[in-house]
Amino acid sequence: MSVASPINRAASGGEDALAALTALVRADLESCNRLIVDKMQSPVALIPQLAAHIVAAGGKRLRPLLTLAAARLCGYRGNRHVLLAACVEFIHTATLLHDDVVDESALRRGQASANALFGNKPSVLVGDFLFARAFELMVEDGSLKVLGILSAASSTIAEGEVLQLVTQNDTTTTEAQYLQVIEGKTAALFAAATRIGAVVADRPLAEEEALDTYGRTLGTAFQLVDDALDYSAAQEQLGKTVGDDFREGKITLPVLLAFERGTEAERGFWRRVLEERDQGPDDLAAAQRLIARYGALHETVERARHYGDQALAALQAFPDGPERRALADIVEFCIARAR
Amino acid sequence: MSVASPINRAASGGEDALAALTALVRADLESCNRLIVDKMQSPVALIPQLAAHIVAAGGKRLRPLLTLAAARLCGYRGNRHVLLAACVEFIHTATLLHDDVVDESALRRGQASANALFGNKPSVLVGDFLFARAFELMVEDGSLKVLGILSAASSTIAEGEVLQLVTQNDTTTTEAQYLQVIEGKTAALFAAATRIGAVVADRPLAEEEALDTYGRTLGTAFQLVDDALDYSAAQEQLGKTVGDDFREGKITLPVLLAFERGTEAERGFWRRVLEERDQGPDDLAAAQRLIARYGALHETVERARHYGDQALAALQAFPDGPERRALADIVEFCIARAR
Repeated sequence: MSVASPINRAASGGEDALAALTALVRADLESCNRLIVDKMQSPVALIPQLAAHIVAAGGKRLRPLLTLAAARLCGYRGNRHVLLAACVEFIHTATLLHDDVVDESALRRGQASANALFGNKPSVLVGDFLFARAFELMVEDGSLKVLGILSAASSTIAEGEVLQLVTQNDTTTTEAQYLQVIEGKTAALFAAATRIGAVVADRPLAEEEALDTYGRTLGTAFQLVDDALDYSAAQEQLGKTVGDDFREGKITLPVLLAFERGTEAERGFWRRVLEERDQGPDDLAAAQRLIARYGALHETVERARHYGDQALAALQAFPDGPERRALADIVEFCIARAR
Repeated sequence: MSVASPINRAASGGEDALAALTALVRADLESCNRLIVDKMQSPVALIPQLAAHIVAAGGKRLRPLLTLAAARLCGYRGNRHVLLAACVEFIHTATLLHDDVVDESALRRGQASANALFGNKPSVLVGDFLFARAFELMVEDGSLKVLGILSAASSTIAEGEVLQLVTQNDTTTTEAQYLQVIEGKTAALFAAATRIGAVVADRPLAEEEALDTYGRTLGTAFQLVDDALDYSAAQEQLGKTVGDDFREGKITLPVLLAFERGTEAERGFWRRVLEERDQGPDDLAAAQRLIARYGALHETVERARHYGDQALAALQAFPDGPERRALADIVEFCIARAR
């Protein structure tokens, strides 16, 4: 990859980067949002009701934004990327609905989750509907290549979710397994979302792969930061929920690092709270102290930064311009959330 | 449709018809079974473990058999139908896994269900995996037309399942809604399974549509009989489980007919047991007596026979031969189960 035009980390805060990306593709995103609402309709009224709850619940639309911007980065001037961005969001929404059932989550984006409000059963089935509908829309688009990328990403997501379930409550989980989980459950869809930008623009394989790398490393960074935030005292001070992963016994990098570096007594603590799920009211604070003692949050964010640098490097395959700058800044957006 | 060569109802018992259909496409079915085992593999060991439990649990493989036989009926001599039959079975298996979670079923085909054995969470996620894998395999096959048929069937299945959930425990459900449920949850996949037989053989639209009609009406008949069997005293005498639909408060045709024809006191009974789900130990027997009193089982099977006759009529678009005879006899197999 060329190093002629190095891309610097954005100096600005993260939220500005998301606003800038959104502004850059605003017309496309508005078309995409209309399409999402239009295509989630069904004569079975509960389907759009439940789907609207999660689709309208104020998500960032990060994944469809990435598809829209990646297509423009590749010089695409048509309209297919709008429909494919909607497909990406449908697949994402389907996985959120199923995740919340699997995690028994009561909240999603600060509001009652669909499963809490409508029950687990319709959440499973409406997830299935949105997933099937995504494939119907891809067929409408007509690219077997896109269908191949998004169907492969979908099975990889499911593999990541199953592996997460298998490693849950198991402190013998390795860092390699943890990485496999987050590359499956998060990075695969980011990679597919950006890669199809090059596909609709009919760009050479090298650009497809560069965008795949950008999305994959960005998604990995995004998830690492998410996993750090779940133990962040700063988040708590902002009034945000922390400790979801802790309560579910998910084995994330902050825990793995603190466990690895801890004393035998501390490992006993982790086994009790995460494996046996025997948690008292002070245990989350104790876990946060251990994670802080071993610099595990800092290191998790450093690893995210490492992946973020790879994402920036991958963008160098493309000419400078507003799209490349916006996509570079989004790397900082994903990481700066950890501040 | 030609009436030159009427097809008579099979005189033989149903099980013979299934054996005959299986024998007719035995080599293809064996290839299909190998492909199913091969393609459900994953580095995440729980996926093939759980999938094997349901895939190997002695299903009839009725839907893939229909795809294989329909392709041969259309004179197809290649191998694509084997892979597509596996896709159909993957989609079916995914819906079974999710159904059992939604219905909280402890048994499936007389064995512990996957959700009872492995838990709800992996059942949801492995269903997602199999569904995604089906689409990966269709992309491998490379027909956008097949992808269109099976993605549309998949969203229709989900719509049927959601509608079933909405009408559950609601004795104001209409016969039209009931038909919409079974056409979604069962008939849509039967129709797709047979239709793609004509698609791989590159046959004219009229034959595609004839096979679609055959599958759709056969699937409707199959589900009507299933719904009758759940209240059948004869089944009970054979040691088979009855009353699952009753316990879940599903509104099926035998109930709808008995409710419609019942006295106000009897309707009160149905409301108590199905809407309020206030069921005592003698209530299933009482329900069976009411259903018998109004001939509701007999009439449900008569309706199935009516759909079965439509399935037979649709087959007349094809020349006589062993495939057409086997597919005609399978209609009787679906209905004769009610004896």
